[in-house]
Amino acid sequence: MIVRTQTAQFEELPLDCGETLRAVEVAYETYGALDADKSNAVVVLHAFSGDAHAAGISEEDGKPGWWDNMIGPGKAFDTNRYFVICSNCLGGCGGTTGPSSIRPDTGRPYGSSFPYVTIADMVRLQKQLTDSFGIERLLSVAGGSMGAIQALQWVVDYPEAVASAIPIAGTHRHSAQQIAFNEVGRQAIMADPDWENGDYYEGAGPSRGLAVARMVGHITYMSDDSMREKFGRRRREPEPHSSGAFEVESYLRYRGGQFVSRFDANSYLVITRAMDSFDATQGFSSIGEAIGRTEARFLVLSFTSDWLYPSYQSQETVRALRSRNLDVAYVEIPSNYGHDAFLIEVGEQTELIKSFLENTYKRLPLPASQMGA
Amino acid sequence: MIVRTQTAQFEELPLDCGETLRAVEVAYETYGALDADKSNAVVVLHAFSGDAHAAGISEEDGKPGWWDNMIGPGKAFDTNRYFVICSNCLGGCGGTTGPSSIRPDTGRPYGSSFPYVTIADMVRLQKQLTDSFGIERLLSVAGGSMGAIQALQWVVDYPEAVASAIPIAGTHRHSAQQIAFNEVGRQAIMADPDWENGDYYEGAGPSRGLAVARMVGHITYMSDDSMREKFGRRRREPEPHSSGAFEVESYLRYRGGQFVSRFDANSYLVITRAMDSFDATQGFSSIGEAIGRTEARFLVLSFTSDWLYPSYQSQETVRALRSRNLDVAYVEIPSNYGHDAFLIEVGEQTELIKSFLENTYKRLPLPASQMGA
Repeated sequence: MIVRTQTAQFEELPLDCGETLRAVEVAYETYGALDADKSNAVVVLHAFSGDAHAAGISEEDGKPGWWDNMIGPGKAFDTNRYFVICSNCLGGCGGTTGPSSIRPDTGRPYGSSFPYVTIADMVRLQKQLTDSFGIERLLSVAGGSMGAIQALQWVVDYPEAVASAIPIAGTHRHSAQQIAFNEVGRQAIMADPDWENGDYYEGAGPSRGLAVARMVGHITYMSDDSMREKFGRRRREPEPHSSGAFEVESYLRYRGGQFVSRFDANSYLVITRAMDSFDATQGFSSIGEAIGRTEARFLVLSFTSDWLYPSYQSQETVRALRSRNLDVAYVEIPSNYGHDAFLIEVGEQTELIKSFLENTYKRLPLPASQMGA
Repeated sequence: MIVRTQTAQFEELPLDCGETLRAVEVAYETYGALDADKSNAVVVLHAFSGDAHAAGISEEDGKPGWWDNMIGPGKAFDTNRYFVICSNCLGGCGGTTGPSSIRPDTGRPYGSSFPYVTIADMVRLQKQLTDSFGIERLLSVAGGSMGAIQALQWVVDYPEAVASAIPIAGTHRHSAQQIAFNEVGRQAIMADPDWENGDYYEGAGPSRGLAVARMVGHITYMSDDSMREKFGRRRREPEPHSSGAFEVESYLRYRGGQFVSRFDANSYLVITRAMDSFDATQGFSSIGEAIGRTEARFLVLSFTSDWLYPSYQSQETVRALRSRNLDVAYVEIPSNYGHDAFLIEVGEQTELIKSFLENTYKRLPLPASQMGA
């Protein structure tokens, strides 16, 4: 399945901060076909550093999508049955308007003038995209990590527009520890003199700071056990008295350096701030009230060894949903892979998501076109 | 108790790397009085960023020592009974020879020419110090975190010179995850252009990189729970759409900035590399053989919420010691404070350490002076 990222443009996007973005572009991909009654659409939401290329082989660079093992014919998100949409998030650097995009009114990159955006802003833009397809109600919104956060925001903001949600390895708000890890990454970027307060697009850019930020991230995505299995104390250099010789060190440096070539430091700042500021309870008396004003069904997943988004956070969300008598399935999947598990543990996720989507689809009210038949 | 850090000088210190350091200085403090038969000496070993000022009030700056709640008359390390010695570690920046010290042969700071040192080198220097007091056998070696690591190294290198050891919240070798967190700190420092490959003493120095490194450290020293209790999602600025407004963020930035004023970035590199490279099993067929060639008694402590030095690591050490039929007490202390607990949980530690030292002292063979009586 060769795929190509497409771009939609919207005249304006009002933001929570009060500003309005003009000529907003959204990079997206779709897989499968939209039914005539538009009842089979699933929005898949990427994690912090993901992009619109969720599945298939990119026409551009030949690489598989970040959830290619989960989206496709016969897979968890079965593209023989469902129409799957994935778009790069607002503030990102994968084709959707973000700090590195050209400002229509100045002809130069936004840089430091890019406004403060929220998860709700990201979801508002996704809604514009699904509206443009004429989709009134999504069969599901699904994603891991920041994808889970966005799925919950969908439910809060558009409770009638989703028939189900699948938040995986997420939370309805960040803990102090989650904010702290993100802040270290931000400080690493802003400590780099090449950051230039965000207006670095004509210069070198804060590549060293961004690499350090990514290294912190990588540690939090893995588990203690999976790092032990993958690296242990193996050294790349046999000499015991040379430093920097552990395999885990060169792996982190490699991944940090690799990240710099594909990600924008200002997007790192903008997106992590949106994640930290996300709090589904904001404006409501409880989390139950916030995410419970819907008839959507939920499948909530977490992983035993995920210490960045620990299971207790998913369990809090589940309790809140159940207190509203909503239809919620929750599974804590045994895995050694830490937070990365949502990208790796394909087997059990596939089984759960496949039957959940089938059941959700079966329970949909008959579309208007079939009501008269 | 007003105390003053003293300095001892030793002509030379041979290092594991093959080099020899000349005119090595050691900053140290002592508390209590050494018995006539020199049987009541306890070496207390500081953690990564600690120094010789373990107890009492510093004559210089009026600050209490880092373990002042544990060392003093009637305390865990009862200075009415024991003679307690604490020295700044080799490679440090608290008065003992380290990268910021002046090289005797050049009259300039070592900087990048400071040799690669190991935990065994640190302990070798401590042995020179205790030898200079005429102490043949220590009643105990005790410390948390890197202090625990050094205590184990003492047992490996001088199995007859210690009557007991108290490794707290430590390990006999770093895991991949522990190495990884240290490596992020090192990369943050080395990414700072003011690091100048280690020869920055006439310049600004890598203060931004060092602050970021310390921020990572602080997160790992606390638990998810203790961060939630201390900061939660409280903001310093009420405006929900301003960034960087969470209390946990300003706390980390404050602590990072504070650290820069008291710690040397090259010492950060040198000491973390020594910790990562430490492996008590090196040169032995098993950890039991390495730390079990002693008649010393052990009190091993860990803390339930410590995820940087998790209890399973202490338990591995305990199993190895027990397999050699050594006298080992192990307690996993319930605490919410994460790795910092060894500095905070005074009550239970005091009870355990106090009776352990008393028992160790009682079992000492009678000194030669009393043998004829």
